[in-house]
Amino acid sequence: MPRFFMAGSNIAGGVAYISGADADHIKVLRLKIGDKIVICDGNKNDHYCRIKSLAPGAVEAEVIESVVCPAEPSVHVTVLAGVPKQGERSDYIVQKCTESGASEIVFFMCHRCVARPDPKGMEKKLQRWQRIAEEAAKQSGRGIIPKVRAVNSFAEALDIAIKTDLPLFMYETGDRVELREAIEAAGDISSAAIITGPEGGFEPFEADLAAKIGIKLCAMGPRILRCETAPLAALTALMYATGNL
Amino acid sequence: MPRFFMAGSNIAGGVAYISGADADHIKVLRLKIGDKIVICDGNKNDHYCRIKSLAPGAVEAEVIESVVCPAEPSVHVTVLAGVPKQGERSDYIVQKCTESGASEIVFFMCHRCVARPDPKGMEKKLQRWQRIAEEAAKQSGRGIIPKVRAVNSFAEALDIAIKTDLPLFMYETGDRVELREAIEAAGDISSAAIITGPEGGFEPFEADLAAKIGIKLCAMGPRILRCETAPLAALTALMYATGNL
Repeated sequence: MPRFFMAGSNIAGGVAYISGADADHIKVLRLKIGDKIVICDGNKNDHYCRIKSLAPGAVEAEVIESVVCPAEPSVHVTVLAGVPKQGERSDYIVQKCTESGASEIVFFMCHRCVARPDPKGMEKKLQRWQRIAEEAAKQSGRGIIPKVRAVNSFAEALDIAIKTDLPLFMYETGDRVELREAIEAAGDISSAAIITGPEGGFEPFEADLAAKIGIKLCAMGPRILRCETAPLAALTALMYATGNL
Repeated sequence: MPRFFMAGSNIAGGVAYISGADADHIKVLRLKIGDKIVICDGNKNDHYCRIKSLAPGAVEAEVIESVVCPAEPSVHVTVLAGVPKQGERSDYIVQKCTESGASEIVFFMCHRCVARPDPKGMEKKLQRWQRIAEEAAKQSGRGIIPKVRAVNSFAEALDIAIKTDLPLFMYETGDRVELREAIEAAGDISSAAIITGPEGGFEPFEADLAAKIGIKLCAMGPRILRCETAPLAALTALMYATGNL
């Protein structure tokens, strides 16, 4: 069933009012009066609707049933990734982490980031990433579109991470615990953060800083994962361990 | 340390003889006499070597230490994937599953495969996939290069799967167990197979056939994963559960 995301405020009195790009999309899909669609209110609810009127740029659909979206994981995971040098790698992180259940994706700058987009370039990237997240959310049946944002500093990324129940920092060397150990020791959690670096990884001082404020430095087994594979692997492991895969 | 794969027979009497593309690559990397390299014999052994002579197309290196490659997982996983329509998706499966510990990758044709390469086209694809696997194996520190091959029929893919300790069939609908349940119920295993479909998934008769010969039909949680994401997610879950991540 075609899936659309819209703000909850556009559903009133058992009727969903659809306009703009979504209304155009309904036309492109050649949907007719009586056809069923799912409208996600962006707040984890799926509204099963039947189209009752179609006008150019304005579609009305009757809400038949509203359910909590079953695809939303019980754990709110924030993926924090150092901006990769190659754009296709960041696109990949956004697409795959959305499919795999991330609730939020945050890109940050750190010492070994090679790409240093200016504010205008970053604005463009964010628009692109948000579009990729929306497409992946629709395709995978998510109840929200993960918010994609960027913070300028590594410190800001750490600050976001320590506000979760289980902040995890993927690091390639030195004193670490196995990811599995860290996840299992945490017990019941309702939120987590996964921090991964760019192609060149993290500087030792960055890992030290994270460890000092109580973030677990984690090893991801004996194989070296690419910067775009590491967040997905950690997220998949977390989803598996918490019964969300 | 630069990593090279070669047949075990090229190491004799504590000396590794390197020729062809690998010798050229050593030149490209501007390595000198005395520099250290790792030579993987393709049989899960890492040989730490020091270069002792450099001639065009012929390099000799003294073996300093030989160890079992720590990156090889304890479980031999065969990933079996229905050939995706889009070539970049199969490339992705090969690269990411190699990084994540697959021992073998097998592409097969099934009912909903749209891409139907002729024998010549398939030969070309296989060469390309094998190159991708080699690059990913080097980069991630693997002790083997996963063999990539293609079988013509779905039945042949099932036959490969049932010869493992834990054959798992990822299916989107109907009577299934959760992947986690299937993995945990299996206990100690030394091999496993992960079967995933192309973009359009499997026909019900294909799932029925798999189930009838004792292959577990598995659900991968409430989110719909793309055909290139599903094998990686299942492999990561398996590696996590068996202590290999």
